[in-house]
Amino acid sequence: MTAIDLNSDLGESYGAWRMGDDGAMLAIVSSANIACGFHAGDPAGILQTVKKAAAKGVSVGAHVSYPDRVGFGRRDMDVTSAELTADVIYQIGALKGVAAAAGTSVRYVKPHGALYNRIATDPKQGAAVVEAIKAVDPTLVLMGLANAPILELARKAGLSVVAEAFADRAYTPEGHLVSRREAGAVLHDAQAIARRMLQLAKEGTIETIDGSVIRIDAQSICVHGDSPGAVEIAREIRRSFEAEGVVVRSFLPGA
Amino acid sequence: MTAIDLNSDLGESYGAWRMGDDGAMLAIVSSANIACGFHAGDPAGILQTVKKAAAKGVSVGAHVSYPDRVGFGRRDMDVTSAELTADVIYQIGALKGVAAAAGTSVRYVKPHGALYNRIATDPKQGAAVVEAIKAVDPTLVLMGLANAPILELARKAGLSVVAEAFADRAYTPEGHLVSRREAGAVLHDAQAIARRMLQLAKEGTIETIDGSVIRIDAQSICVHGDSPGAVEIAREIRRSFEAEGVVVRSFLPGA
Amino acid sequence: MTAIDLNSDLGESYGAWRMGDDGAMLAIVSSANIACGFHAGDPAGILQTVKKAAAKGVSVGAHVSYPDRVGFGRRDMDVTSAELTADVIYQIGALKGVAAAAGTSVRYVKPHGALYNRIATDPKQGAAVVEAIKAVDPTLVLMGLANAPILELARKAGLSVVAEAFADRAYTPEGHLVSRREAGAVLHDAQAIARRMLQLAKEGTIETIDGSVIRIDAQSICVHGDSPGAVEIAREIRRSFEAEGVVVRSFLPGA
Amino acid sequence: MTAIDLNSDLGESYGAWRMGDDGAMLAIVSSANIACGFHAGDPAGILQTVKKAAAKGVSVGAHVSYPDRVGFGRRDMDVTSAELTADVIYQIGALKGVAAAAGTSVRYVKPHGALYNRIATDPKQGAAVVEAIKAVDPTLVLMGLANAPILELARKAGLSVVAEAFADRAYTPEGHLVSRREAGAVLHDAQAIARRMLQLAKEGTIETIDGSVIRIDAQSICVHGDSPGAVEIAREIRRSFEAEGVVVRSFLPGA
Repeated sequence: MTAIDLNSDLGESYGAWRMGDDGAMLAIVSSANIACGFHAGDPAGILQTVKKAAAKGVSVGAHVSYPDRVGFGRRDMDVTSAELTADVIYQIGALKGVAAAAGTSVRYVKPHGALYNRIATDPKQGAAVVEAIKAVDPTLVLMGLANAPILELARKAGLSVVAEAFADRAYTPEGHLVSRREAGAVLHDAQAIARRMLQLAKEGTIETIDGSVIRIDAQSICVHGDSPGAVEIAREIRRSFEAEGVVVRSFLPGA
Repeated sequence: MTAIDLNSDLGESYGAWRMGDDGAMLAIVSSANIACGFHAGDPAGILQTVKKAAAKGVSVGAHVSYPDRVGFGRRDMDVTSAELTADVIYQIGALKGVAAAAGTSVRYVKPHGALYNRIATDPKQGAAVVEAIKAVDPTLVLMGLANAPILELARKAGLSVVAEAFADRAYTPEGHLVSRREAGAVLHDAQAIARRMLQLAKEGTIETIDGSVIRIDAQSICVHGDSPGAVEIAREIRRSFEAEGVVVRSFLPGA
Repeated sequence: MTAIDLNSDLGESYGAWRMGDDGAMLAIVSSANIACGFHAGDPAGILQTVKKAAAKGVSVGAHVSYPDRVGFGRRDMDVTSAELTADVIYQIGALKGVAAAAGTSVRYVKPHGALYNRIATDPKQGAAVVEAIKAVDPTLVLMGLANAPILELARKAGLSVVAEAFADRAYTPEGHLVSRREAGAVLHDAQAIARRMLQLAKEGTIETIDGSVIRIDAQSICVHGDSPGAVEIAREIRRSFEAEGVVVRSFLPGA
Repeated sequence: MTAIDLNSDLGESYGAWRMGDDGAMLAIVSSANIACGFHAGDPAGILQTVKKAAAKGVSVGAHVSYPDRVGFGRRDMDVTSAELTADVIYQIGALKGVAAAAGTSVRYVKPHGALYNRIATDPKQGAAVVEAIKAVDPTLVLMGLANAPILELARKAGLSVVAEAFADRAYTPEGHLVSRREAGAVLHDAQAIARRMLQLAKEGTIETIDGSVIRIDAQSICVHGDSPGAVEIAREIRRSFEAEGVVVRSFLPGA
């Protein structure tokens, strides 16, 4: 039986501002990357979303970020290692508190936005994040970009890791994401995306932007829910997985 | 043997701004009320202070607040119960994460500033705080003002509570704090304060502003450390306790 | 010829979060209450909206607030007069800078949310707001609730004032707004609302919740744009005004 | 007659947190770089400092920053040009409002911390800052690092500029600041610093870290006030200037 995880960024509303359709996405994904308040998410909002995730049996991860709410955590910041480690510890702890109150627990950590991209290849900030996770709870799994050096760095440091692919992004023949600044980087056709993800789940391969086929070793697929179109793509992936016998479930052992 | 707890507000620096002398106070007190980021405290700073508290064997409490950094949590806010409960859960969780990373744990919760004063007598906001504590960790003790209704409210809800007195404040014959707006509300003479606290620790009584003597049932005494003078008062209390055989230790069972 | 102002709260997006349809509303209203960053609005977003307002010839007002972004400025706060005066000066100044960069200028000030309600009847906070306006630019007009004491307070202090009515709210026979907690407080029928506002504009009267008719002396009508339904109501008011010969234009002299 | 400007960073307290001794520094300097709320400074605090500056006849400048309070604006951030331009417009406007309320006006702009260093050589962010100044008030002078490309960039764009030297920093033979990471980068001897600055003011030259003497074309000298030692250095510079007939006055025409 083939099984794979679907993850999505949730809990990204803030105060009076709505973002995404958490209810709809929690019916599609098996893992929820929950904003921890630094780029998005206020306590009352994330508590509500984590309660819904618990009710649906969806795994909860801490979507930790640079402290940059107005920039939505998308701007690279030259933080020190001590600052970054403490910021990540604080955010994981806050979400653990929310998860406990919701009757569930935090199982993994996925850095967000600029921090995600930075640590994919920056060993200094990467080590600071790894140190934070180990300090607060070494059983937490680090979710990172398939093929990125951060996964090996974290594994060597003793963490469990899970590699993810992006459903709506094109890949280079080297297995990297095509930069958003280039044409064709972002995919929009729900059915084509679903077919690609089916191939990834079943065969572990993906067609790159130049037509070649490469291996991507991913245990999770990231889908978006920040627009009706994005929710529809996620739903189509889930639909096609179910039709083709691919089980959507958390990457966690025993899940 | 007579024993009593001394507690103080710590971790109140923020970024480049210093407040108080955490190192000096951790040599004096047995319980540290650590800011959780809403009125004061950034993650790197509170991690440092919690590590020092752990090294000194000082108990760690979550000093939770309204979300009002520029007002230092001193301004009353009409938050809803849902907001307040979630805010307190988030802050306790964040400090639990920091404490885990520092090799210790959060043992109690003390609301800060305007929230402290509000819940002393406001059953709605008080219930929201109690609900938060129970939701995130019902073994946490709530620290509150001796003689205030919140203690009974929390006890009825199943929480352990600890009552505190304020070393540098005058009391009314009814056992309330004299309002800061009135003359004589705040005491400044270190030796006189130390004598008052010795009497409180040994006999459970305090002389009120009109000269009468009343009972104050307090298991902890709050001392301040936000100025050199305040640190000196705290040190004098500790000194006189040691000279008179009063043991300073956490109110926690087994501490 | 009958003329009246229509005003709406704009510039309320924040970073990645959208709120309202500023473009649509700027085709309807004659005055734009622009968020100044304390409850909503980031500099890049408000600059964009103010540029659009300038292009449409819509008057710009400073929608000043308590410093409470996560609560959207809707929570009453016990700020001191000195804090409130300085906060209002800062916000007006910031918007004046943005307006200068957009080739227009700030013409009036409308407090937002909890601050709006508080100063309607609280002379202490009201005086602090009035002092701020006079200090930064005494030619600015204060917009406030028709029939509220703040208007007289500000007038006596030498400010020009403009009174506003709320299109979608029911009124008591005393000329106050029916509390949102009571049934019938908020109106939803676009055509009925438009008819009421036409009567207000032409005759200066409104039917209250008990069926009686009272005078409301208002030079501006507040319409909302935070949902498609709200935009439709605003559009219907504008449409019926134009059909009935009521000119929609700023309350400012010469506008 | 030789005259030069002394400038210092002021208004850097925040809420309950104090930083620097603004009162002492305003008796020493001729120009005050006032925090605008993004890295430091709350409205009530900066209003107080600007009022004192006005009373002393000290020129007021806007000390604009990246939006990073917890990092005190010292961390490089990859903001877009549109974000940066709007952020600078907003901050200048806010301080203009405060200055108007204090009976004075903003005369120049000095970027702070990481932004200061970034635009010294980054033409993209430099152009965004220049655009902001021109948009909000093209009569404002840009203060920048002597010998840095930003001065020429701003001048070509039509702005007036003023170059500054740093009193307590060593210089390379190329006229750059010695990096803080290298030994001898920061000077501590008040009398030696005063002698260096006297030479700079009178002859326009400075001895570099390798003993050579170079020209530094600076119309202002930056002194610090964030510690008692720093205030003493600033005072010694002023004292030696007065003893040697160097007039301390603003670089502004007519000041």
